[in-house]
Amino acid sequence: MAKKQNRNIKEDKKPVKVGILGFGTVGSGTARILVENRELLEGRLGFPIALKKIADLNIRKDRGIALGKGVLTTDALQVTDDPDIDIVVELIGGLGAAKELMLRAIRNGKHVVTANKALLAERGREIFAAARKYGVSLGFEASVGGGIPIIKALGEGLIANRINYVYGIVNGTSNYILTKMTDEGMEFSKVLKEAQELGYAEADPTLDVGGADSAHKLTILASLAFGIPLSYKSVYTEGITGITPADIAFASELGFKIKLLAIAKAADGQVELRVHPTMLPKDYLISKVDGVMNAIYVNGRETGDTLYYGRGAGDMPTGSAVVSDIADIAQRITGGAPPKSGLAAVKTAGTPLGIRPMDEVESMYYFRFAALDRPKVLSRISGVLGENNISIASVIQKGRKEGEAVPLVILTHKAKEKNVRKAIRKIEGLRAVVTGKNCLIRVEGEE
Amino acid sequence: MAKKQNRNIKEDKKPVKVGILGFGTVGSGTARILVENRELLEGRLGFPIALKKIADLNIRKDRGIALGKGVLTTDALQVTDDPDIDIVVELIGGLGAAKELMLRAIRNGKHVVTANKALLAERGREIFAAARKYGVSLGFEASVGGGIPIIKALGEGLIANRINYVYGIVNGTSNYILTKMTDEGMEFSKVLKEAQELGYAEADPTLDVGGADSAHKLTILASLAFGIPLSYKSVYTEGITGITPADIAFASELGFKIKLLAIAKAADGQVELRVHPTMLPKDYLISKVDGVMNAIYVNGRETGDTLYYGRGAGDMPTGSAVVSDIADIAQRITGGAPPKSGLAAVKTAGTPLGIRPMDEVESMYYFRFAALDRPKVLSRISGVLGENNISIASVIQKGRKEGEAVPLVILTHKAKEKNVRKAIRKIEGLRAVVTGKNCLIRVEGEE
Repeated sequence: MAKKQNRNIKEDKKPVKVGILGFGTVGSGTARILVENRELLEGRLGFPIALKKIADLNIRKDRGIALGKGVLTTDALQVTDDPDIDIVVELIGGLGAAKELMLRAIRNGKHVVTANKALLAERGREIFAAARKYGVSLGFEASVGGGIPIIKALGEGLIANRINYVYGIVNGTSNYILTKMTDEGMEFSKVLKEAQELGYAEADPTLDVGGADSAHKLTILASLAFGIPLSYKSVYTEGITGITPADIAFASELGFKIKLLAIAKAADGQVELRVHPTMLPKDYLISKVDGVMNAIYVNGRETGDTLYYGRGAGDMPTGSAVVSDIADIAQRITGGAPPKSGLAAVKTAGTPLGIRPMDEVESMYYFRFAALDRPKVLSRISGVLGENNISIASVIQKGRKEGEAVPLVILTHKAKEKNVRKAIRKIEGLRAVVTGKNCLIRVEGEE
Repeated sequence: MAKKQNRNIKEDKKPVKVGILGFGTVGSGTARILVENRELLEGRLGFPIALKKIADLNIRKDRGIALGKGVLTTDALQVTDDPDIDIVVELIGGLGAAKELMLRAIRNGKHVVTANKALLAERGREIFAAARKYGVSLGFEASVGGGIPIIKALGEGLIANRINYVYGIVNGTSNYILTKMTDEGMEFSKVLKEAQELGYAEADPTLDVGGADSAHKLTILASLAFGIPLSYKSVYTEGITGITPADIAFASELGFKIKLLAIAKAADGQVELRVHPTMLPKDYLISKVDGVMNAIYVNGRETGDTLYYGRGAGDMPTGSAVVSDIADIAQRITGGAPPKSGLAAVKTAGTPLGIRPMDEVESMYYFRFAALDRPKVLSRISGVLGENNISIASVIQKGRKEGEAVPLVILTHKAKEKNVRKAIRKIEGLRAVVTGKNCLIRVEGEE
């Protein structure tokens, strides 16, 4: 059997050796691909990739992968410190041990591959600096968009482009919940519970539905697209917890779908960085991206719109992205090419772009007010909007219960966030006009 | 001014020098990007790319690009033979001079970038062999999908995947015509004439509407996806000239759209290679790709479906792809990495896949017969289909003109092409049952 397996292995080609930190979902997917597609990869690369070590606290659980003896260890340092290992793959996640081990591996001269968007977005400056200092490659294809090769497309495929904007659905859990709410008219909390039972949402879903996971990914995409420093703290972030079936229905009536978008747009020397529920025209391709699927638009001055679609999570899709980074770095090692740490390589000429404060961002808006007294309400509200330079594109008034709250929906033309907030505060102060919870959703699309 | 322009140029970084053959649409786009995005590219790459020569028979026409003195020449050998030029970009097109000049450049040790799908698909084996022999890189991102980085996605981003299938809309002209026929119920010939007047279709549209251009692109994609030799002659090719507004309307009634698809599918050790009008379920993302836009699905065992969408043609999108290849090769040159000639690098382990003969391909089918005599016709036709192991999924009969031809539409379950052809021949021989032109369209989707 050994003979047959080795049929295509050229004895003169030394394997590139890989160690994995973390044997969870993505770790298992990565290991499975390295083991089961070993011949395929060797055929494509011309040399073998050997999985030498996997470190995890739980090495008793059977993941159903045929690993050699001695591959599994509970000691992470057997991966980071093994002089024989060329590439360390960090799949632990989080900002703690993951960071320390990654830095340790870098200091040991290991090339590093990671799927850890939180770590890169929040502590990436330090990590990329270390990679540059120690002359190692840092691959992070798996940090955004799961199996979609979006990092490669943006950083290499579109290298000739001045990027105008990048926006996308980069969190599968939120998209699953919004899709289910849209298709079945269900409440957020019910769908979330169902998603948790099905394993589509974490026990603590905050990172996903609160928008932080999308903000992490946006931070990385924006750095790559615009050559700006990693700016997680500057991302305006709003999750989907406030979206109601009523808003989804009104959006539909107006010709829109609601998606949680991560948006990075450059204009006039500044970049907008924002994550929030967004109304999109129904006929946009991205509006049809449902369930757990991800999709990312990249608009370059040269290419115009391009779109990248696929599974944004899961063991095998994310493992596929991890292994593509391993293959890239392994080729650099065997070919004698200099290391590449993605972001480090991205510098744009000219004055660097600043971050546009959210107050200065312009957008169209959808408002839903709980209006108390219909006869007066529209003139009062439109008066306040007008005072703040916000002009109305359309209005929906539904129901009629004198003295009770009925929804009043307003779609605006383009307005400045600052003015919108001011107007909303004023309108919310009109206690005889509106009551309870109001809703604001930003709208993308042509005016 | 010179000082300001050179602000970001590090004097210690030698420029990589590029020569372009052909100053037409894509040549102009490529030159414009190299000139106008020079600083941007240098910022991203860390070294400059210099456009040294452009050869074309017509160098008098003003393309509005600020070229240095002496860049333009009518002598192609000033590009292929200049010892100073590192990368030769072939954008002449066609199988004649383009091939000779490309081979000459390769023999001179130049790396080569091309957008010439016809040449690669029909003569690529010779060209890739030459590139390997002379140790030069061969970039062809621009040969498929214009500004969509599909070659990079497939060859590098999805390198960890066993590819199950690749299919897509890879010809913008045909997609524009089908979209217009669908949206406005117009005849093929009328839309074609209009497209020619608008410059969306060539004076001789045969390559586009006849399917050969799609077959060229499919040949390249299939080699990359499945590690098979370039097999243009094995691609079953059928264009869109036979599609009528009636078929589009029937397809719509059945829940489908008609697109010209290029399909490469692997199963049971063989690859199907086919280009033909295809009925696709309306709710597929690709069914919503309209106008001149291109989109390509890649289904890998590991990632599942991924989709890549964008402009498949045009000066700047295709120029963007050309320049991404130039950037890749330039990085190899400056980094001292070995050359890479895409296809040459793709070898799959194990037994190579053979090409499945079209006769053996299985698909669902749509038939439209001009049925003469309704009472008898369905039983006669379904009898013939049954004899040939073709089972019917649905039937539409429209109109009623005793003794005259009315359309009879049949949708089948999965059947073998061989059996379908046999059945169709037999049915067409039933002169008392059907008359005039019948129509057959293959159907993709779940059964």
